[in-house]
Amino acid sequence: MEKGDDRIKIVVIGGVACGPKAAAKARRCDADAEITIVEKGDFISYAGCGMPYYIAGAVKKIEGLMMTPSGAVRDVEFFKDVKGITVRTNTFAQSIDRKKREVVLVDMKSGQMEAMSYDKLVLATGSSAVVPPIEGVGMKNVFTLHNLNDAAAIFNYIVGSNAGRVVIVGGGLIGLEAADAMGAQGVDTTIIEMMPHLLPQILDLEMSDYLAAAMRKEGVNVLTSAKVLKIEGDSDGTARKVITDKGEVETDFVILAIGVRPNTELAAAAGLQIGETGAIYVNEYLQTSDPDIFAGGDCVECTHSISGRKAYIPLGSIANRHGRIIGTNVTGGRETFPGVIGTTVLKTMGMNVGRTGLSEAQARNAGYSTVACISPSVDRAHFFPGGRGILIKLVAEEGSGKLLGAQIIGQGDMSKRIDVVAAALAFGASVEDMAKLDLGYAPPYSTAMDCIAHSANIIRNKFDNTANSITAAEVRDKISRGERFTILDVRSPVEVEKNRVNDGRVKNIPLDKLRQMMNELPKDGEIVTLCQAGLRAYEAQVMLRGAGFSDVRFIDGGMALWE
Amino acid sequence: MEKGDDRIKIVVIGGVACGPKAAAKARRCDADAEITIVEKGDFISYAGCGMPYYIAGAVKKIEGLMMTPSGAVRDVEFFKDVKGITVRTNTFAQSIDRKKREVVLVDMKSGQMEAMSYDKLVLATGSSAVVPPIEGVGMKNVFTLHNLNDAAAIFNYIVGSNAGRVVIVGGGLIGLEAADAMGAQGVDTTIIEMMPHLLPQILDLEMSDYLAAAMRKEGVNVLTSAKVLKIEGDSDGTARKVITDKGEVETDFVILAIGVRPNTELAAAAGLQIGETGAIYVNEYLQTSDPDIFAGGDCVECTHSISGRKAYIPLGSIANRHGRIIGTNVTGGRETFPGVIGTTVLKTMGMNVGRTGLSEAQARNAGYSTVACISPSVDRAHFFPGGRGILIKLVAEEGSGKLLGAQIIGQGDMSKRIDVVAAALAFGASVEDMAKLDLGYAPPYSTAMDCIAHSANIIRNKFDNTANSITAAEVRDKISRGERFTILDVRSPVEVEKNRVNDGRVKNIPLDKLRQMMNELPKDGEIVTLCQAGLRAYEAQVMLRGAGFSDVRFIDGGMALWE
Repeated sequence: MEKGDDRIKIVVIGGVACGPKAAAKARRCDADAEITIVEKGDFISYAGCGMPYYIAGAVKKIEGLMMTPSGAVRDVEFFKDVKGITVRTNTFAQSIDRKKREVVLVDMKSGQMEAMSYDKLVLATGSSAVVPPIEGVGMKNVFTLHNLNDAAAIFNYIVGSNAGRVVIVGGGLIGLEAADAMGAQGVDTTIIEMMPHLLPQILDLEMSDYLAAAMRKEGVNVLTSAKVLKIEGDSDGTARKVITDKGEVETDFVILAIGVRPNTELAAAAGLQIGETGAIYVNEYLQTSDPDIFAGGDCVECTHSISGRKAYIPLGSIANRHGRIIGTNVTGGRETFPGVIGTTVLKTMGMNVGRTGLSEAQARNAGYSTVACISPSVDRAHFFPGGRGILIKLVAEEGSGKLLGAQIIGQGDMSKRIDVVAAALAFGASVEDMAKLDLGYAPPYSTAMDCIAHSANIIRNKFDNTANSITAAEVRDKISRGERFTILDVRSPVEVEKNRVNDGRVKNIPLDKLRQMMNELPKDGEIVTLCQAGLRAYEAQVMLRGAGFSDVRFIDGGMALWE
Repeated sequence: MEKGDDRIKIVVIGGVACGPKAAAKARRCDADAEITIVEKGDFISYAGCGMPYYIAGAVKKIEGLMMTPSGAVRDVEFFKDVKGITVRTNTFAQSIDRKKREVVLVDMKSGQMEAMSYDKLVLATGSSAVVPPIEGVGMKNVFTLHNLNDAAAIFNYIVGSNAGRVVIVGGGLIGLEAADAMGAQGVDTTIIEMMPHLLPQILDLEMSDYLAAAMRKEGVNVLTSAKVLKIEGDSDGTARKVITDKGEVETDFVILAIGVRPNTELAAAAGLQIGETGAIYVNEYLQTSDPDIFAGGDCVECTHSISGRKAYIPLGSIANRHGRIIGTNVTGGRETFPGVIGTTVLKTMGMNVGRTGLSEAQARNAGYSTVACISPSVDRAHFFPGGRGILIKLVAEEGSGKLLGAQIIGQGDMSKRIDVVAAALAFGASVEDMAKLDLGYAPPYSTAMDCIAHSANIIRNKFDNTANSITAAEVRDKISRGERFTILDVRSPVEVEKNRVNDGRVKNIPLDKLRQMMNELPKDGEIVTLCQAGLRAYEAQVMLRGAGFSDVRFIDGGMALWE
């Protein structure tokens, strides 16, 4: 597109995250362009990810989610005065005429229609909350949590009705953030998830079970593998009970957090290519199948940089990065989006939860042969006050040693380690690279060898055959099959006293007595070693194998996953 | 080295960080090796980096610095029982006979000498505190802070004497951590630094000045470009006054934190190569010039991965990583140490301070043509409660866009961003790579586009010539030269009211009025734009240049560095 004397006309459909970002960047790249944002709702350029914190009461005014860091409200006037961008709210984009380069708009208040011409069109149409086709979802106290109106409605309902109980349908990211908000509001929460575990797209089973246990401890009723059949209510349309195939749950209101689907109707009707995930296809420049029409945010699919597969990952962070690239490219730039690696973080019930790259299940699905480790860690020097735990799972490829992903859960600093792994994954790091990173060490921030490097070393030890592990789940299966083997618990007597493992197979020998007492163990028998965090059990395994014991493995993750 | 029936004999000189780590890893790699650690002091395997926190009172018992995470004290018995490693404390390694493969040991209590043979020798002789050759350094209340005895002495002195004032000589890492400990103990602190700014090896001038201002606000008396001439005291040898070329400071005690020098005497006397930095030379396998003698930790020099130059960077994190590699290699492995990128983090007076890679001054010294940005940021979504500020400086190479380093200072989460940059630097990342990382976003952890990616984008904008900046220091120089130009302050009236910039050159036009009011500005005159954090000033610069103003730059870092 040549820029002549005529001002280029850029029309952006969608005014929440990707759209305004694209428009603002386009303005910075081209002072003369005529830029219009079209938004069907009332609000523009708001922080959707902040909605749970508004409901929780942590963000005091809903306007807070629409403000710039310096306190200006990003409304129609702001875009006009500061950015020189026209915003049309309550305006619906009905269709695109690609030949004429026009988009047909409908004023949702007056009903008037209008054709607006464009040189470049940006589709940032976002996503919609999925509402399951079951009886009762239309009741007045059944909410979704997808836009500011939803957030306001939920907040007002809690405050107005003194609601004390909620059922959240869906144990994904939004469901868990909603649960956190409910906890902050003192509302008793039941989460119903159809899959066998929470966050099924994000965590492997054992990590998810660890999270569910922590949430239950905080009073959340977590039901998994449970299917909602219907919602029952009063004659006035107030939901009172959620009926599942596993029983009923009485409640004061319901939040549906099943997931979202991309808004592709406009694109599809215009004949633009829809990808295999059901979202709009875009190339690396974020162009749709029509090179003058760009798309980004929740309405498009991305390429997963690790698996190489298409993925639908609707996240605010991605929408913002898309917006910047689109703003550059609609004004003559040629910038690429490198794909996603699936980094996702959330906070729920005091637990920091994060994933980057592939989970082990996803990696195996993608054809990788995997080696993983689970390492309970403390987020700073153990002698430094205030340290908190995190449970780290790292996943790598057998053979190549390529790092594939990480999952971290705990009260401690998850966010740093997830972002470090995310950075390493962007460059195709191996576990050796990861272990050798020159990360910052001071006692308030980390251990001398940070726990994420330590985890990488555990996987390297597994590759070397120095470390031979068994998962807690495998040991439990062996026990339930009635197998004979020794569980060697090498914790100190004080630790054992506090939290004894009760099984006839258990033998307690503290690590510092093991060298002297190893003759009490069967040299050819099967031994699995156990300690609190896995490190001493690993040392015991090394010690016993060094002394000629033939069949010794340590329990990965220690007591953290044993219980 | 073939492993036959004979057990390999490994002797490790030095028992603090690298030495014990090397020994423990060697044991895990070789169950049969005969491993001895020789340490001249009383204590082994302690967390030297924790000493300031013991003095501060945050670590309650000094034994806490010698414990494993599970609470076992890492003493001679622990190494014997758990690791199968012999430790000889109070034993001095006097000389090495490389032909005989023997090291001569002196029992420091009995004075008895003994020759100990080795197959592989590990030098982990550490460093010593530099004591300047000035009058008064021998007085009884003049301390260094280098080992556990020093830490205990300082702590006991404060508690025992009710000392209320300290002079810390040296404004490097140890000096600033000591200042933090003094703050925690309620001791009034003066820091005397010979160079023009604090942390001269770590921070650029303007970042260091920002830190010094924050420390002064917390009551620390910071004297820079000041040389200590002598320490004066009572006739009983109690220091009372520190005399500098800039005046005298009365005090109750003195901490010398000038720096450390590598302990190379043993290596040098044995004819091992000493590197250009004055520390022991080692190759990538951490072998000295004698392939059977390895060395690591504070006594060796490293290669800086970015500059390619030799560097002496004595840090506990590096010592630990060295130890693991040496343990592998003395038992037949062949692992490499990839070099360092200079990641250093510390906490002082409530400020988190970090650096990774090269500072701008170091980069220019190393021959790079640099572009930098300074960006005041908040560590999480601005609407989320509890967010805290960090000031980020990123440095990149002009032309290639290669990332060279980062410096971050503030009360907010510095540590995450420094480690993310450290990870990216390990792979030779460009600022574009940095900007496009798939980092985790949720409001408690970051902004939708994390501040570190935002900083990378600012540099990209400078490369593109979209962003044209001037430093606060340059503007101050222009003012002091009496130059005529306009300072356009685009903050809101409320912000200006709170903190007005008083200069005749200043014109206040809030950003949202600038499009209407730009005709009040001189189209051909020089304009520098100013706001709180730099973002709006940048937008104003873009807006004015888009409107045909020819000479407009924004002040990098906004008010953060203006004051």
